[in-house]
Amino acid sequence: MTLPLFYVDDVIKTALQEDISYLDTTTDLMIPAETRAAARFLAKAEGTLCGMDIALRVFSLLDDSFQARVYAADGARVKPGDILAEVEGNTRCLLKGERTALNLLQHLSGVATAAARAVALVEGTGASIADTRKTLPGLRAMQKYAVVTGGGRNHRFNLSDGAMLKDNHIDAAGGIPQAVALIRQKLGHMIKLEVETRNLDEVRQALEAGVDVIMLDNMDCPAMAAAVRLCREARPDAGRPLLEASGGITADTLRAVAETGVDIISIGALTHSVTALDISLKIAK
Amino acid sequence: MTLPLFYVDDVIKTALQEDISYLDTTTDLMIPAETRAAARFLAKAEGTLCGMDIALRVFSLLDDSFQARVYAADGARVKPGDILAEVEGNTRCLLKGERTALNLLQHLSGVATAAARAVALVEGTGASIADTRKTLPGLRAMQKYAVVTGGGRNHRFNLSDGAMLKDNHIDAAGGIPQAVALIRQKLGHMIKLEVETRNLDEVRQALEAGVDVIMLDNMDCPAMAAAVRLCREARPDAGRPLLEASGGITADTLRAVAETGVDIISIGALTHSVTALDISLKIAK
Amino acid sequence: MTLPLFYVDDVIKTALQEDISYLDTTTDLMIPAETRAAARFLAKAEGTLCGMDIALRVFSLLDDSFQARVYAADGARVKPGDILAEVEGNTRCLLKGERTALNLLQHLSGVATAAARAVALVEGTGASIADTRKTLPGLRAMQKYAVVTGGGRNHRFNLSDGAMLKDNHIDAAGGIPQAVALIRQKLGHMIKLEVETRNLDEVRQALEAGVDVIMLDNMDCPAMAAAVRLCREARPDAGRPLLEASGGITADTLRAVAETGVDIISIGALTHSVTALDISLKIAK
Amino acid sequence: MTLPLFYVDDVIKTALQEDISYLDTTTDLMIPAETRAAARFLAKAEGTLCGMDIALRVFSLLDDSFQARVYAADGARVKPGDILAEVEGNTRCLLKGERTALNLLQHLSGVATAAARAVALVEGTGASIADTRKTLPGLRAMQKYAVVTGGGRNHRFNLSDGAMLKDNHIDAAGGIPQAVALIRQKLGHMIKLEVETRNLDEVRQALEAGVDVIMLDNMDCPAMAAAVRLCREARPDAGRPLLEASGGITADTLRAVAETGVDIISIGALTHSVTALDISLKIAK
Amino acid sequence: MTLPLFYVDDVIKTALQEDISYLDTTTDLMIPAETRAAARFLAKAEGTLCGMDIALRVFSLLDDSFQARVYAADGARVKPGDILAEVEGNTRCLLKGERTALNLLQHLSGVATAAARAVALVEGTGASIADTRKTLPGLRAMQKYAVVTGGGRNHRFNLSDGAMLKDNHIDAAGGIPQAVALIRQKLGHMIKLEVETRNLDEVRQALEAGVDVIMLDNMDCPAMAAAVRLCREARPDAGRPLLEASGGITADTLRAVAETGVDIISIGALTHSVTALDISLKIAK
Amino acid sequence: MTLPLFYVDDVIKTALQEDISYLDTTTDLMIPAETRAAARFLAKAEGTLCGMDIALRVFSLLDDSFQARVYAADGARVKPGDILAEVEGNTRCLLKGERTALNLLQHLSGVATAAARAVALVEGTGASIADTRKTLPGLRAMQKYAVVTGGGRNHRFNLSDGAMLKDNHIDAAGGIPQAVALIRQKLGHMIKLEVETRNLDEVRQALEAGVDVIMLDNMDCPAMAAAVRLCREARPDAGRPLLEASGGITADTLRAVAETGVDIISIGALTHSVTALDISLKIAK
Repeated sequence: MTLPLFYVDDVIKTALQEDISYLDTTTDLMIPAETRAAARFLAKAEGTLCGMDIALRVFSLLDDSFQARVYAADGARVKPGDILAEVEGNTRCLLKGERTALNLLQHLSGVATAAARAVALVEGTGASIADTRKTLPGLRAMQKYAVVTGGGRNHRFNLSDGAMLKDNHIDAAGGIPQAVALIRQKLGHMIKLEVETRNLDEVRQALEAGVDVIMLDNMDCPAMAAAVRLCREARPDAGRPLLEASGGITADTLRAVAETGVDIISIGALTHSVTALDISLKIAK
Repeated sequence: MTLPLFYVDDVIKTALQEDISYLDTTTDLMIPAETRAAARFLAKAEGTLCGMDIALRVFSLLDDSFQARVYAADGARVKPGDILAEVEGNTRCLLKGERTALNLLQHLSGVATAAARAVALVEGTGASIADTRKTLPGLRAMQKYAVVTGGGRNHRFNLSDGAMLKDNHIDAAGGIPQAVALIRQKLGHMIKLEVETRNLDEVRQALEAGVDVIMLDNMDCPAMAAAVRLCREARPDAGRPLLEASGGITADTLRAVAETGVDIISIGALTHSVTALDISLKIAK
Repeated sequence: MTLPLFYVDDVIKTALQEDISYLDTTTDLMIPAETRAAARFLAKAEGTLCGMDIALRVFSLLDDSFQARVYAADGARVKPGDILAEVEGNTRCLLKGERTALNLLQHLSGVATAAARAVALVEGTGASIADTRKTLPGLRAMQKYAVVTGGGRNHRFNLSDGAMLKDNHIDAAGGIPQAVALIRQKLGHMIKLEVETRNLDEVRQALEAGVDVIMLDNMDCPAMAAAVRLCREARPDAGRPLLEASGGITADTLRAVAETGVDIISIGALTHSVTALDISLKIAK
Repeated sequence: MTLPLFYVDDVIKTALQEDISYLDTTTDLMIPAETRAAARFLAKAEGTLCGMDIALRVFSLLDDSFQARVYAADGARVKPGDILAEVEGNTRCLLKGERTALNLLQHLSGVATAAARAVALVEGTGASIADTRKTLPGLRAMQKYAVVTGGGRNHRFNLSDGAMLKDNHIDAAGGIPQAVALIRQKLGHMIKLEVETRNLDEVRQALEAGVDVIMLDNMDCPAMAAAVRLCREARPDAGRPLLEASGGITADTLRAVAETGVDIISIGALTHSVTALDISLKIAK
Repeated sequence: MTLPLFYVDDVIKTALQEDISYLDTTTDLMIPAETRAAARFLAKAEGTLCGMDIALRVFSLLDDSFQARVYAADGARVKPGDILAEVEGNTRCLLKGERTALNLLQHLSGVATAAARAVALVEGTGASIADTRKTLPGLRAMQKYAVVTGGGRNHRFNLSDGAMLKDNHIDAAGGIPQAVALIRQKLGHMIKLEVETRNLDEVRQALEAGVDVIMLDNMDCPAMAAAVRLCREARPDAGRPLLEASGGITADTLRAVAETGVDIISIGALTHSVTALDISLKIAK
Repeated sequence: MTLPLFYVDDVIKTALQEDISYLDTTTDLMIPAETRAAARFLAKAEGTLCGMDIALRVFSLLDDSFQARVYAADGARVKPGDILAEVEGNTRCLLKGERTALNLLQHLSGVATAAARAVALVEGTGASIADTRKTLPGLRAMQKYAVVTGGGRNHRFNLSDGAMLKDNHIDAAGGIPQAVALIRQKLGHMIKLEVETRNLDEVRQALEAGVDVIMLDNMDCPAMAAAVRLCREARPDAGRPLLEASGGITADTLRAVAETGVDIISIGALTHSVTALDISLKIAK
């Protein structure tokens, strides 16, 4: 698993504690302790799978004897009726882990599916799709993994691992040039610097100040196209800053934004407004 | 706050650790430590507010001197432009807490808004809207609180606090009557018992076995209406079991389902497929 | 194990940290690291066993090579001299885990033994024995599991999973009928409602208001018998509320209480005043 | 508070999470959020109070505005009807914290009461009463604090902070002299060494080997008296080892044991078989 | 405080639990609970102060009434005899927190002092001093904060927030150009890329492949100077990669390394081999 | 492992979370998931090894398939070029665990090496080398284990497990005799008592008061020699208190201190100022 096991296990344990609490009052009273069962994960909608290893890990944490045969790995395109995995284990543990496993699998597949759709919409334009910090508490690393699984790229993970000058920072310093100069004095040499801009003049200032990434915040397409031209002309070499479009971009506007020539399009909805992908676990009788 | 503070604080701390990690590399380098600022929470869409106290708690955990004046409480209907709260505090802490506060507030208001819409759709029918266990890991209590804030009711919170006989449990016992008899022998006297049914014959068996709630799983409206009649005729007194409609119910079908006379309609999408409500925090310059 | 492993392991780890702290200064200096030993769990008193799997888990967490043959499962009646289990493992780990394993096993068997005694005292009366929320911090789920192991039933586990109207709630609403009406408007459909009553008049009000369980709080036997008659006459059908006797019931009074016809007798002492059952671990030399 | 706050708070939070879980379904629906109430802690039995600060801390963790006037401090002898403290705070928080506060207070007062009774029984003999490691998981520090509150002394807290040679250690070394010599080579200079003995010959060996404390394990009174004489004659100076009586000592035998002249009498039942002291919290209407 | 409070508090709580455990057996028995005392933090050696706020926070966590007047902030040069802060609080809490506060303050000041010495040695050369991932478990953020306090810069904080191609990565891809091309396809746009090189040929490959930072691993000074020339000639514009000297650099060689023209000199010893700065807390009698 | 696994694992998990955070952005993108590799731990300096099991445990926690052949156990003297262990496992996990494993191994070997050097310096004098409470937060048990590994002894581990009367305690009681008498009344019978003294007069008072250990705090060698004579003359029998030299003792003065006849020499620098021992992990290509 790419995600660290200690993180995945912590999320799963939190989810199991929420869902099981102290016992499964139905299953513990109805199903004999030693009964075993087989089950299948089935796709019930079309999309991009994500979280298969995580879903299976739920059962491994409950049941040492749990076994799985996996037919579809993270990143696979799935369609209704696809068998994603066949599993076998203690019946009580299958029933106790079912909801937690599906909640994770459906949510992460929902994120990956949305990312894959956005990536498909910009195909051929040279633009990449990126996530944001608009994630759900406790799930950021999983959600960002799902964005990558869907073909997107990760923006900065947190406030530590990338610098982004926003209006309050710029105002405090007295302007973009001053802000960039000030932060460059202390910023670690492994940290990239991005500046938020709202018009061409700010783009020009950021370009001259020498930043790694320029965010075009809520600009319309003509303004973004002009920003792209400005940067390409000023810095025809490879060293020019990347341009990131951001702010209220939807499926309807995405292609047009990508065609302005921006490098990155970041979309908060990938992680803040997720539609779960319908997947079921069918336990054989 | 209705939710226990130790739970709310744990969720917030997890979110802050994800989002801040070890420092805010931009803010800590750019904003002097003692600067103070004012800010406003603004609604940018129409919906039902939820999570205001939680969002403010984010800042209180970062800043002892943080103060807020709240204009819209959880449950309030808000529209674009409404000022929800005015806050004042250390600028660094406002910037560090902003994303975490908004992520929580927007998500919970998204849940409450969806619940309120569903409640409005069934108005006057006597049906209640309920959530499910299809929640996001670590956020169940918050999401269930948001459903109530939107006017819905909570289904069982976890596998401990309600008994639900599903097909695997019923098959293990040999049928609905046997399953009900078996679980009644041991079930705590404060635990309600629900049975999943898929047709009128199973509804009849559940009714005769004497359960508290009968789930009508993925039935069509005529079947549900028939189930309602069956129960009312068999048990005209107050003691009849509640009927719960469940399975793939959307905004389009919700009213029709409610008009069959069922008591409860449970909707997984309330918590598994949430569209965040757009709310911003505008920090004064 | 019925109890969730993550909970059991957390309790055990807390206990081991308390008992071992940073090393076992005697054992680590005296016993070579690779020595192995066999040992026997022996009952030294008569009672009902509970916590065998938990006690063995203590050693499994310390020693991957630990093995056990179990002769008496949870719920078994044991008498002095009974061999409960034979175990084999690393000597250092046996010595380090011994106290923690016995502390858990003796306490839980003490709870189960007390529950079994109470159950035996009411045999044939139709009354069930139930626990309360008067449990020891961190041990509630274990203690409630032990009550069930001894043949008792669980009352509500916590303030979330059952509603109980006590005098302060009733006074705030203005009386039993008002309180019941108010809470019914919002209570989840899977939550049972109990009302505390102190006399026949309150029992009558609760009965008319339509609650699931009526607690007879500190009533004498004639009053309880009258309450039973009242409920049976008013609701001869199956739908009548359960009656729960509560308050200061001891071994001396238990049979008489049960013979009043109440359904449930709840006893705080089952979990708040526990006499450990004497069990030893004899490590072979 | 003598006990570290971080430990006390952890125990309380665990207890509150167990008892409240996600909400108090009765109180949150019935009591308006801002209501305040006064309440009294009342003794309902005779004994030694312990845990007053801890019980009050429960409410402080739930309610910033909580206030208390304390009339009886830890260690006080209380009798039925004594008002122990008067408190005032948010009604919801009083109701939510009540059970947790009482569970702690009643348990710790039960421990202190038992310790005080044992201390009283040996008064004038020169013997001290000590606890053991037979404590309840997660509560060791609190229970040991309660033993001291009742006038007892603490035995070693865990396996790290005192060395105790038991039969398995002695056998591994080949005898008491060899075991003492071996452990002395490595034992930290701040760690005391105790040896378990079962007869006068072993006492003599321990005495000659030069240990700090000799445990007289399950000896009868004449044997213990002989051991006392042996040690006093061999080492009339102040440097003689302390003698500790241990094993199955009850209220009936305690005085006789103390009169043999032993220095310490350790009693597992002080912490493993606790009878809660009856204390109530009466919330004013 | 720049460091997040939740992190600082976690480190302090861990330290207090280690140092206090269940009580301060001396202080709790000897010092009356209400006694108050004043104390002074005194420098006893020359160096750069770091951790003052953290040290004071130790006492605030133990004592609500604790107060401090601070005379020397983090980053201050101190010399023997300097009074760093005057504090006042509960005597028991001062004694219980003293060791933990000093352990943190002395260690972090030791790190800052070493960093400041290195920074002074390269003054005027244009080279920056950086830390590494060779830190002590649990203390990374504090140690990196201390490096910055001493005038150094932070290298990447962890494996997530910067990409570094080492020999195993390069070999797996088949060479530096292939490795850079491969990672560029997926790397987030906010992540910098560094490549480890061991000779001029590898430097040239890295330069041509277009990376952000080139590490000169264990090269001698002439080789580093040649690498500097190579890069400056190939990329005279501002966009050239930074050059980082790394590997076994000591106080003796540091100046010469800096004079080769490298941009960054990273030194593991700053955090892995720390000499505590002598600071005492003198509690007034 | 002597250290408890739950403690070791907690330290490792904390370190891995710091070092990996959410992914290894280089390794996860460059090394195929199933690749395996072999690696060798190599000593690159002379010293005493400590932490081998702990270092290997890092990889076991990341990789179930990890295997190791160990050639040098904790306590072994190693020299440059020695192969300490050969390991084999998943390549990604080897790369992700490398830094954490080495950070622990190098630090603990640094502590053990310093302890072993001090022990060698006092060889033949009868003095033991002891550590102090001047340890690094979260690492105390590991550091104290390393001191023992290097041949030293542990002083008290924390404020609970040994009593030490310092000047503030003594002043509060009115003098050494009063302080000793007071604490003796309540101190557990398994707790040793040490008194800090600064001159011969205080040594004499401590001796007469009857303590277990007398600390000679910052005395010069003639004073310490006089203290030794004083104690031996006053108490020629085995029961005399141990004498502990403490305060600013360095490699230069250590032998002379030992030759005064003191029993214990405690050295804070063993744990507060550690020079890491150079050890590398060479991963085969």
